[in-house]
Amino acid sequence: MSTSPVGHPPARLRAQDFILASRQSEIAGLQQLLHTGELVTAVSALVHCLQRERGLSNILLSNRASPPARGLPHALTDTDAALAALHLPLAQLDRAHPQAGNLSRLFNRVAGALHALEELAALREANRGPTADRAASMRRYSDIIARLLGVVFEAADGCGNPAISRALIVLFSVMQGKELAGQERAIGAAGFAAGTLDDDAHRQLLDLIDGQERCAQTFLTFAGPALQAAWHAGPGQGNPAFERLRRILCAGRLPPEGDAVQAWFDITSARIDAIRGVEDHAAAALNACCRAALAGAQQALAAQQLSLAPAEEAGYTVLLATTPGGEEARYSTGPLGAPLGRAILDVIQQQAQHLQQLSAELTTLRASLSERREIERAKALLMQHRGLSEPEAHKALRSLAMAQNKKLIEIAHALLAVETVLAVRGEDAR
Amino acid sequence: MSTSPVGHPPARLRAQDFILASRQSEIAGLQQLLHTGELVTAVSALVHCLQRERGLSNILLSNRASPPARGLPHALTDTDAALAALHLPLAQLDRAHPQAGNLSRLFNRVAGALHALEELAALREANRGPTADRAASMRRYSDIIARLLGVVFEAADGCGNPAISRALIVLFSVMQGKELAGQERAIGAAGFAAGTLDDDAHRQLLDLIDGQERCAQTFLTFAGPALQAAWHAGPGQGNPAFERLRRILCAGRLPPEGDAVQAWFDITSARIDAIRGVEDHAAAALNACCRAALAGAQQALAAQQLSLAPAEEAGYTVLLATTPGGEEARYSTGPLGAPLGRAILDVIQQQAQHLQQLSAELTTLRASLSERREIERAKALLMQHRGLSEPEAHKALRSLAMAQNKKLIEIAHALLAVETVLAVRGEDAR
Repeated sequence: MSTSPVGHPPARLRAQDFILASRQSEIAGLQQLLHTGELVTAVSALVHCLQRERGLSNILLSNRASPPARGLPHALTDTDAALAALHLPLAQLDRAHPQAGNLSRLFNRVAGALHALEELAALREANRGPTADRAASMRRYSDIIARLLGVVFEAADGCGNPAISRALIVLFSVMQGKELAGQERAIGAAGFAAGTLDDDAHRQLLDLIDGQERCAQTFLTFAGPALQAAWHAGPGQGNPAFERLRRILCAGRLPPEGDAVQAWFDITSARIDAIRGVEDHAAAALNACCRAALAGAQQALAAQQLSLAPAEEAGYTVLLATTPGGEEARYSTGPLGAPLGRAILDVIQQQAQHLQQLSAELTTLRASLSERREIERAKALLMQHRGLSEPEAHKALRSLAMAQNKKLIEIAHALLAVETVLAVRGEDAR
Repeated sequence: MSTSPVGHPPARLRAQDFILASRQSEIAGLQQLLHTGELVTAVSALVHCLQRERGLSNILLSNRASPPARGLPHALTDTDAALAALHLPLAQLDRAHPQAGNLSRLFNRVAGALHALEELAALREANRGPTADRAASMRRYSDIIARLLGVVFEAADGCGNPAISRALIVLFSVMQGKELAGQERAIGAAGFAAGTLDDDAHRQLLDLIDGQERCAQTFLTFAGPALQAAWHAGPGQGNPAFERLRRILCAGRLPPEGDAVQAWFDITSARIDAIRGVEDHAAAALNACCRAALAGAQQALAAQQLSLAPAEEAGYTVLLATTPGGEEARYSTGPLGAPLGRAILDVIQQQAQHLQQLSAELTTLRASLSERREIERAKALLMQHRGLSEPEAHKALRSLAMAQNKKLIEIAHALLAVETVLAVRGEDAR
């Protein structure tokens, strides 16, 4: 860009300067996304550690000193290391982009996740105590994980580049699916251990299976061939023994034998490990995608700088005079229809098309995230107009869904449809 | 934020730091919007000057040395001054936000506008020559103005704050309506002068009237009470004499008397001046809106800093240890359910709701811009797959619309619906 200080009008306002500024802004955005991608990768590792910690705590709290449960102390250390590893990408994102006006939502999610993580020490402490409660431990771990998933969701939702947005959606859908699989493992294990599944647990189980299927669909819609192949060779392969245990659970006729718990735990754990393999792939693909997009934009910038350079030397067009007032003789134009003038127009139009395509693709991609966004908006609505906390709002939505035998998203839709009525009531109340 | 250098893991990752970072990012975004608003205001002044210059050139090229045409030299000077005034906001936007990753599209539009403005000197030169052509002059001025309006459209479309986005949409709709009114003035004047209106001009006239009505509707949908009142007291008041001349034009039975040209020109000019009055209001409202949003966010930040300050002093929660490895004893939590912990959660949730509301409002607002966006996408499609230039693509769309007696937007819709087919053809061709 022009180098004159602000306040002293420089000699010209040139189109080519702003073509380059446009490209530079794109590059700044991609650099930010690269840092966001690193944060998301660190979050994915932390979530995996927390899921293991939650699973092992679950086993211990079920009073069964099975061999895997002995791994808990090691799992805690892993979680701590993953937590520490969160620091660098967070600090980088914050420090490298002090002027970024679009990190507000992501940072808010980060604040929420960190606040939830502050509960971790107390949770571990409680789990060691005499009144440790398996269900409470499960719920508290899951809350923390949900907050961390919120960071990944926001990264995908706020992403301004379609290829990277796609990679983020793919990673998010694997992570979300894995989290639902982890919850299914816990509910199933508790069911097999108790020899029964109550109505609420049964309903939750169906929701979790349904949710996993939708995650897999989203994944397969947006994943590239390599990731799809990894999915089909791993968790997507299907396992008759697993499906049989699932069916038994859903049917509610649980066998009296004790080793069903262990069988269920082992088979679901293997499945979760397989999903983790795909998740690692997806994180690597995200990183590669960020770097490729950045390199591409940098190359395009270099090419443009080269193609526009002659203009600089030839002093192509003086558009704007430095002195105020005066006649139009101050303007001098290069030869009309000169090759360079045409080249500039071509570059502007190419770039406009490129940007327009990005934006159109993004609209399509974001639609795939709308379900979660609508559920969140419905929750926010309840929190605002009924003064509920977030867990209360979630519970209220779930109860409504259960009572009407509907999906969460259908209830959210219905709620948002009557938003205006709720808003008016809120005003009346003041 | 944390002050330790990158690479040395700092003592803690605290939720409250990221609450503040979230707010700071919002403020950075609003500062950028303030600068964008200043740019848009400067563009609005420049467009007005160019419209006057175009109108006066039109009169001169019609070979009628009417009194207003004598103002042309003065108008040229005004345009030059308005062009020079564009520099400061542009430089400010570019320099104040070097890390902004979301200015790519705006800068691309600026490049397009500046490139078009580089034609201005040649256009003025041509208009002074012996082969000066009224229609060509009109078209070339209108092209420049269209590019400048593109900058304002992009500012509205890319804006991340609903209140400011609304103010930008209001300003854009007034500017767009005024531009259509200016084109109507020119077509009508030519028609009255020639005593006839050909089919193409007639069709264009109907489009222009229709377009102005839709601009007025958009304006009234989003403008505040003061601006609405200004509209109803000015251009929205209606003028029977103007409507009568419009009707005569549309009916195509033009009177033989010569003073109809002057009457038409005077009455449409008065109308355009009235719209300009509303435009000035809208620009002032935009500026006030930007400043209010910025002040509000800064106040909220100060309030949050104050409410979160005790946490800093009390060393509320140590979440993360500095040393790698080790046991979980490194974690120490503040009292569970302490007032501050709850306060932090409240702030996070308030902010999340605030951000979510912004985003939901924006979705609604942007829908109002979708028509123009779709027409642009349809044009881009034609440019890409048929190798057309932008004016050619626009002409192709208009011809299709004329041939089928449909609106431009309907043709754009139809084109976008078959986009996939076009894309496949494009691939085949390679």
